[in-house]
Amino acid sequence: MNKQLILVKRPITIPEKDTWELRSTAIPKIADGEALIKTHYLSLDPAMRGWMLDRKSYLPPVGIGEVMRAGTIGEVIESKHQSFEVGDILSGWGGAQQYFTTDGDRQYKVDTSLVPMTKYLGALGMPGMTAYFGILEVGKIKKGDVVLVSGAAGAVGSVVGQIAKVKGCTVIGIAGGTAKCQYVVETLGFDGCIDYKSEDLYTAIKSHCPDGINVYFDNVGGDILDAALANIKLNARVVLCGAISQYNHTEVQGPKNYLSLLINRGTMQGVIVLDYADRYMEAAMQMGMWMMDGKITTEEDVYDGIENFHETFMRLFNGKKRGKLLLKILED
Amino acid sequence: MNKQLILVKRPITIPEKDTWELRSTAIPKIADGEALIKTHYLSLDPAMRGWMLDRKSYLPPVGIGEVMRAGTIGEVIESKHQSFEVGDILSGWGGAQQYFTTDGDRQYKVDTSLVPMTKYLGALGMPGMTAYFGILEVGKIKKGDVVLVSGAAGAVGSVVGQIAKVKGCTVIGIAGGTAKCQYVVETLGFDGCIDYKSEDLYTAIKSHCPDGINVYFDNVGGDILDAALANIKLNARVVLCGAISQYNHTEVQGPKNYLSLLINRGTMQGVIVLDYADRYMEAAMQMGMWMMDGKITTEEDVYDGIENFHETFMRLFNGKKRGKLLLKILED
Repeated sequence: MNKQLILVKRPITIPEKDTWELRSTAIPKIADGEALIKTHYLSLDPAMRGWMLDRKSYLPPVGIGEVMRAGTIGEVIESKHQSFEVGDILSGWGGAQQYFTTDGDRQYKVDTSLVPMTKYLGALGMPGMTAYFGILEVGKIKKGDVVLVSGAAGAVGSVVGQIAKVKGCTVIGIAGGTAKCQYVVETLGFDGCIDYKSEDLYTAIKSHCPDGINVYFDNVGGDILDAALANIKLNARVVLCGAISQYNHTEVQGPKNYLSLLINRGTMQGVIVLDYADRYMEAAMQMGMWMMDGKITTEEDVYDGIENFHETFMRLFNGKKRGKLLLKILED
Repeated sequence: MNKQLILVKRPITIPEKDTWELRSTAIPKIADGEALIKTHYLSLDPAMRGWMLDRKSYLPPVGIGEVMRAGTIGEVIESKHQSFEVGDILSGWGGAQQYFTTDGDRQYKVDTSLVPMTKYLGALGMPGMTAYFGILEVGKIKKGDVVLVSGAAGAVGSVVGQIAKVKGCTVIGIAGGTAKCQYVVETLGFDGCIDYKSEDLYTAIKSHCPDGINVYFDNVGGDILDAALANIKLNARVVLCGAISQYNHTEVQGPKNYLSLLINRGTMQGVIVLDYADRYMEAAMQMGMWMMDGKITTEEDVYDGIENFHETFMRLFNGKKRGKLLLKILED
């Protein structure tokens, strides 16, 4: 049987367990030109919260009664597709289910001989691409810039900071708790890290970046965004990548310090990774080389079983995870 | 005697009359290399509210005990300056006083044979330069864009919209009251105008711009900014020029719809006209030609007497003015 996680209601604030229903159906049969995939890992991303809202956005909302949208990596176990053979590993949009069929649309064959497959949902997947294009194309970092990154121990933030280090920037992270901050500095090599759970944000940023911030990469929104805005330099760039602190609120907390953009002629700009789809290859190659060279280190935090989807999903919001959050769906 | 308006305290919210003190001193004597100016008109600008705050900004705050900073236009009545003769008209930073001396720093001789001198504090002065560089350099308008402008009947907004019309855009204004909206459409030639005092903002914007906004030029902040953000198109530009609705608040209302910038890959960027000082000549020439050609129409709203500074200043916030707000200081 095929266990699937179906979206059955639209949460207003924090998604409860009954937002989804676990259903068992028959494993689907493949037609000519299709392959059957067994999903090994599923990616848990803050963006999923947005896909559950019934509003116009960069992707249509997941429909009620549909399988929850999710990035996956899995193995071809049966194939009538001309490009895929049994045993191939495919990364793409498999959704929250154990098995699915594909005609190949938005599924990419990946090579797991040099890196474990989980990396294709992290640094070599959407989070890595988001970090790459967000900090380089929207953040427009250059050598010597002071770069502040929130969600610094997370899947995107950890890569953003390491790319900025490669490019010769001074990089300060913001993360929750001593252990994460230690990881950000000692393992990821940031120049400093602020613990938002125990430090006064404005003062801490001011002390780490006494001359101000050139680029702020925001994954969180809320008070952290405000404290960052209060510390920007002339012509600073604020990259809006996410607002994890706000996704479960009915009303978003707007940045009351947004006029700092006016005084400092700053720019605040959103980044959506899908816009760079035709350049993923470039970014993935570059990221792969940096990983091989030891310049980019990433970590995956893996939980087990589609039954534990809700509990694992909540770790995105309660901070109980480090690096890329994954759910193992079926054994290798 | 020389009547001067001195800043004597820093208002927290709405500036009361006792924020300033009117003092009489002797008319200053000029030294070699200086000229004495009799001020004819003083410019009242929303930015003045910011200059009264004791905080780091794009200009140092006006000091307590100092003459209030203000743009002026006046006449040379005595000169030991090699470039200025008695009768010359100078535009610059004269401050809120009847007479002042200058060594020529940031004072520009202007030609009043074709346009009345008041235009040099409006379309040919800071508001016009702000409109020009804000909409062209930050807004980056191009033919066919849908442009929304708040404060549309004001000194900056009225020029912004007319420049956008010259460039082939569809232009919708936002202003307060039927009379102003009529002025914006019938006299200034905007394609439409929304009365924020009587219309639901979101719905009205949606109805005037059914396919969304390419560029929003914001002079006001608050709920209008939020309604505009909710209606932006993909890759929209939001030009932050001011936030008149917020200047007398102790805590600024942050735009709770700022994540629309993320979903739509929009950009929000501040403009400070001083950054374009080396291009004022270009803008002033262009603006002058558009004015001569009837493409840009502006209006000045002139009140009389330095004694009425406070009451006139408050018109910036209560909306009881149209076009460029000026105070006549001394008769011609």
